Amino acid sequence: MNESLYIIKIGGNIIDDNAKLSRFLKEFASVEGPKVLVHGGGQLATKLSNQLGVQQHLIEGRRITDAETLKIVTMVYAGWINKNIVAQLQASDCNAMGLCGADGDIILAHKRKHPVLDFGFVGDVDFVNTFLIKNLLEQKLTLVIAPITHDQQGQLLNTNADTIAQELAKALSNDYDVHLIYSFEKSGVLLNADDDNSVIPVINRSDYTKLKKEEKIFAGMIPKLDNAFAALSHGVSKVIIGKAENLSKLIAGTSGTNIVNE
Amino acid sequence: MNESLYIIKIGGNIIDDNAKLSRFLKEFASVEGPKVLVHGGGQLATKLSNQLGVQQHLIEGRRITDAETLKIVTMVYAGWINKNIVAQLQASDCNAMGLCGADGDIILAHKRKHPVLDFGFVGDVDFVNTFLIKNLLEQKLTLVIAPITHDQQGQLLNTNADTIAQELAKALSNDYDVHLIYSFEKSGVLLNADDDNSVIPVINRSDYTKLKKEEKIFAGMIPKLDNAFAALSHGVSKVIIGKAENLSKLIAGTSGTNIVNE
Repeated sequence: MNESLYIIKIGGNIIDDNAKLSRFLKEFASVEGPKVLVHGGGQLATKLSNQLGVQQHLIEGRRITDAETLKIVTMVYAGWINKNIVAQLQASDCNAMGLCGADGDIILAHKRKHPVLDFGFVGDVDFVNTFLIKNLLEQKLTLVIAPITHDQQGQLLNTNADTIAQELAKALSNDYDVHLIYSFEKSGVLLNADDDNSVIPVINRSDYTKLKKEEKIFAGMIPKLDNAFAALSHGVSKVIIGKAENLSKLIAGTSGTNIVNE
Repeated sequence: MNESLYIIKIGGNIIDDNAKLSRFLKEFASVEGPKVLVHGGGQLATKLSNQLGVQQHLIEGRRITDAETLKIVTMVYAGWINKNIVAQLQASDCNAMGLCGADGDIILAHKRKHPVLDFGFVGDVDFVNTFLIKNLLEQKLTLVIAPITHDQQGQLLNTNADTIAQELAKALSNDYDVHLIYSFEKSGVLLNADDDNSVIPVINRSDYTKLKKEEKIFAGMIPKLDNAFAALSHGVSKVIIGKAENLSKLIAGTSGTNIVNE
């Protein structure tokens, strides 16, 4: 049996709330064994874009990463957020190292191809350098991953943090017993999006198909659940979705939604 | 005899000039053996501060790093500049990893203490984690270091890039035959600041004392030269100051100023 590896994604509101983030990081620091934290960007990038007068371009509801936006997200995600998380983890005796996908060539991607739309500098992941990641984890380093990748041609690319967590989890599942935790502001997958007590404790594929058909799954959850099932199909042991503030309980299996591959 | 290690600082104008930076990075990528690149910030942080309306505070001609300025320099140095350099090096088959001092706890510092002035979030270096740096270099990783450190209490600190290069060089001189190169926009230490052909090829301590007395050393060079002599006194094999565009010649010893400890 392989060693357990926790890959934990945080995103949403928690990044914008210093007190919550700080509590989360203390709890994260105390998780035993090898672990990886993947973070999103929160509202800071949008705020900075507004301050700088950089227009956000949306096509079919999806944000386009033009050159100015890429600069902003690289500064905010790989700079400010990543290094602050690392410094806070260091203060909790967790030897963290903050990386983006270009560092050590750990996540190689290509600019998204689409028959009609140009999403700009958005990357879809091709390859994860598990050899280096494993080596760093074996040195007791905790990796903090910013959602920026590169194409090996010198171009940085903005990449969805949920996808990065899933790709890391899949790639590392040959070497570890991977537990993938998507933590965010809700208590799990909810039957009623307005009721945080309506958490579904376990979802399998047929539940998911049924709930989607009945339109009982909150739209924002669909890509997360698709990611979760994809991860399980590629060797990831466990996928849990739940509230960042409940990290220890998510790990213990007493909170959140457990996604199971049956 | 220990293996050679090149620690190369780039700063000044080259960071602001994409074409020059790109040529420099291609040349840097081709340097054989273990190497570390320490970069400054260029004008981008000042430009961003102006765009955001963040006032620059100076006390006795020295910039104060308040909380907003720290955020800006962390975004610009550890985010945009660091990750772009890494992506460009990756494109030249140089497996680069961008780190700041908080990452892997590689450079520990404390907030500058001063009897009267408060410089804000400025860090003076206490310790370099050579064990981890050596380990990364042995994995054929090229380290790209942004001039941001931390205090192990969760605080990031703005730290002079020349000083970081010097501290890394000193600390690593137990394990390597360290060549420290300060590269910038001038061809070396000049006898006449306006004449790029007046490079002094070799300076020893007595030359330096004499030239300083005669006020023949350009004021901006004094901290660089003090840094250089301090490095030589602490085991660094070679210190060279010269033009970034001449990197190969600086390494070959056919350009720039060679600082010698006699």
